Amino acid sequence: MNNMKCYGSSKFIDNLKNKNTLFLCVFATTKTSNIPGITGAGATPELTEYTPAADLELVMYGTPKCLPEIPQTIVGEEPAPTPAVITKACLEIADIPLMIADAGAGVKPDLPFIKLGEKPAEDIRTGNSVPDAREIFEKGKILGETLSKITDHLVIGESTPAGTTTALGVLTALGYDANMKVSGSMPENPHDLKQEVVLEGLKAAGYSKGEVIEDALRAVEIVGDPMIPAVAGVVMGSSIPVTLAGGTQMTAVCAVIRGIDPDFDFSNICIATTIFVAEDETSDINHITHQIADITVIAMDPEFEKSSVAGLKCYLDGSVKEGVGAGGALFAATLKGADMDDIRAMIEDLCKKIF
Amino acid sequence: MNNMKCYGSSKFIDNLKNKNTLFLCVFATTKTSNIPGITGAGATPELTEYTPAADLELVMYGTPKCLPEIPQTIVGEEPAPTPAVITKACLEIADIPLMIADAGAGVKPDLPFIKLGEKPAEDIRTGNSVPDAREIFEKGKILGETLSKITDHLVIGESTPAGTTTALGVLTALGYDANMKVSGSMPENPHDLKQEVVLEGLKAAGYSKGEVIEDALRAVEIVGDPMIPAVAGVVMGSSIPVTLAGGTQMTAVCAVIRGIDPDFDFSNICIATTIFVAEDETSDINHITHQIADITVIAMDPEFEKSSVAGLKCYLDGSVKEGVGAGGALFAATLKGADMDDIRAMIEDLCKKIF
Repeated sequence: MNNMKCYGSSKFIDNLKNKNTLFLCVFATTKTSNIPGITGAGATPELTEYTPAADLELVMYGTPKCLPEIPQTIVGEEPAPTPAVITKACLEIADIPLMIADAGAGVKPDLPFIKLGEKPAEDIRTGNSVPDAREIFEKGKILGETLSKITDHLVIGESTPAGTTTALGVLTALGYDANMKVSGSMPENPHDLKQEVVLEGLKAAGYSKGEVIEDALRAVEIVGDPMIPAVAGVVMGSSIPVTLAGGTQMTAVCAVIRGIDPDFDFSNICIATTIFVAEDETSDINHITHQIADITVIAMDPEFEKSSVAGLKCYLDGSVKEGVGAGGALFAATLKGADMDDIRAMIEDLCKKIF
Repeated sequence: MNNMKCYGSSKFIDNLKNKNTLFLCVFATTKTSNIPGITGAGATPELTEYTPAADLELVMYGTPKCLPEIPQTIVGEEPAPTPAVITKACLEIADIPLMIADAGAGVKPDLPFIKLGEKPAEDIRTGNSVPDAREIFEKGKILGETLSKITDHLVIGESTPAGTTTALGVLTALGYDANMKVSGSMPENPHDLKQEVVLEGLKAAGYSKGEVIEDALRAVEIVGDPMIPAVAGVVMGSSIPVTLAGGTQMTAVCAVIRGIDPDFDFSNICIATTIFVAEDETSDINHITHQIADITVIAMDPEFEKSSVAGLKCYLDGSVKEGVGAGGALFAATLKGADMDDIRAMIEDLCKKIF
C-alpha cells in the first residue's frame, strides 16, 4: 500500500487482515514534563499534565472536559491539531472499540478507564521516578491475558507527555545507543536537555554514565515512566498479535520486554507509527529497534500535504508527529479496509467541528 | 436442562448458544454493611468492606491478597465457602474472560479494574448514599457501548455487601412492593432491620413512607448503592444480550432501568441466579420482577446435595446463596457446554485447594 511503509518483515501484517481489533490507549504523566522546553505537548509546562486526559476525552466525546481549551501543540504560528483527532477519525471510520488504561496519571479523564497504576511518575532527575513499576507491570500482564481472550489483535497507543525523555532514560540505562535518536513533539528536538536530564536521574540513583542496568524494571523505576511497564506487561501477558502504536517511546517498551525475557519472540509484535516519526530527521526509530531485536516498524502516511486544513500542515514540518496511538490507529483502520482519502476527510471534518 | 429452571420466556437462552461471552463483575461497598446484623458477607461488620476485593482476588489468583483470611460467610458451625469459588470454577472450566469494575468501593482489589465510581456509598440512613449516582450511570453507559463491540453476550455479576438492603431501598423508593421479598446472605433474613434502615434513609431525605420518587437515579442517590447505577448504565449502553448475574439486587437494577426508560425492552435481558435464591423461602425474586416488567429469571442448580465437601452443604440450608455473579457464571458455563457434574467437581477441587 502507498500509505504504508514497512521496515522489516511484512508477515505480521498479512496475518492481521479481517481480524477483530481492540485499541487500548495507556496514559500516564511524569513530573518530567514540567521541565521547561522538554515537551510541546501542552500550552505551558504545567498544562502538560492535563494533555492525556484532555486527548482521551476528545477521542471519546469530541471535546475535552478537564480543560477549557482543546489540546493543541503550540509551536509556530498555526496551532497543530492534537494527534488525538487522527486516532478518533480512524477508530470511528473503522468502528474499532477503544479501552483506556491509567498507568499512573496526575489528571484523570472523565471516562471509564482501567486502573493499572496508582500515581504519576516523579521527575526522572530524582532517580526514583516509578517506584511501583513492578506492580504496574504485573497488572499489565493480567490485562494482557484478559484482552487476549476477547480480541484477535491488540493495538496499544500511549499518551505520556515527556515520554521520549523517559524512553531515552530507560534505553540509556539498559545500554542502548539512543542519544540524539529519540523523537520529540517539537520541530527542534531538545536532545541535549533530554540527555542531561537522563544522566542526572541515573546519577541520582547511583549509576554513572555508560553503566548498564541489568534489571529492566529497575531502569524504569529510576528513569522511566509508568506507561512503559504497563505496556510491557500487557504485551508479555498477551497471546495474540500486538501492534505498539507509537514512536520511539515504544522502543523503550521493547527494550524492557527484551530485558525481562531475552528470548522473547518479537515476530508477533510490530511498532506502527506515523511517517512524521519514521522520516523525522531529528530522530531515528530504526536505529534503536535494530539494537533491540528484529522488530518490524510500520510507518503510516495520512498525506496531509493534500489537506485543505492549515493546521494539519504543521505535521509536515514536524511541529507535531505522533501521539494517542495515531500511527497505529491509521494502521488498524487501513487493515480494516478504510481508505486513506476517507480517513483524511474524516480528520478534516473533525478539525472543523472541534477547533 | 435439569440444572436450569426458567421463569418466563426461554427465547433469550436459545439465542445465546455458541456466542462469545464476557463476564463483568461490578463491585462496590456501602457503609450500610457496617450495621450489625444486616449482612453475613464478612466475619465482622467492619470486614464486610473487604469482601468484594477479597472475593475478586480469589477469583483471579485463587487466594485473597487484601485479607489474611479467605472470605467465608460465617453462620452456624461449618463455614460456607464464598460463592466466588463457584464463579471461579465456571469461568475456568468454560474459559470465559473476566473484567472487573469498581462502582465505588472502600477497599480495592490488587487487580486491574475499570473505574466507574469515586468512593464507597454512605450508610443509607443518611438519605444521601450515592451522591454521584448520575456520573456512575453515565460511565456505565460508555462501558456498555464499548463492551458491546467486543463480545456477543455480557454477563454482569456484582459484589456489594448489604446490597439487598440498598436494593430494598431503591425498590421501595420507586414504589415497588419489596418488603419481606429481598434475599439475604444469612438463613434468617433480617427483613425488619432492612425495612427500618430504608425508611430511616427515605425520611432523612425528606420522603415519607409510601411516597414514590419519580426520578430513578434520585432514588439511588438517597438509598441505593453504587453498583445499581453502574450496572443500569452498562445495560442501557449495551446493544447485545445481557445476563444480570445476581439475585434480588438485580431487580433494583431493572427497576432503575425501567424508571429511566419506561419503554425499555427487557426481552434482551435476563436475571440468572442460583436455585438458592430462587427457591429461598425468606424472599421472592419473581414477585419483584413481575411488578417491573416481563423479565426472565433463570435459576441454576449446582446440586450441592451431591457434594462431598461439607461447606457446600451450607448453601442447601440458605446460609449462603449467591454473590460475585455465581448463578450467572453457572448459566454462562452451561451455555458454553460445561457439564454440571464437572463444574461441581471443579468447585470441590477449588474448595480443597483454597480452604
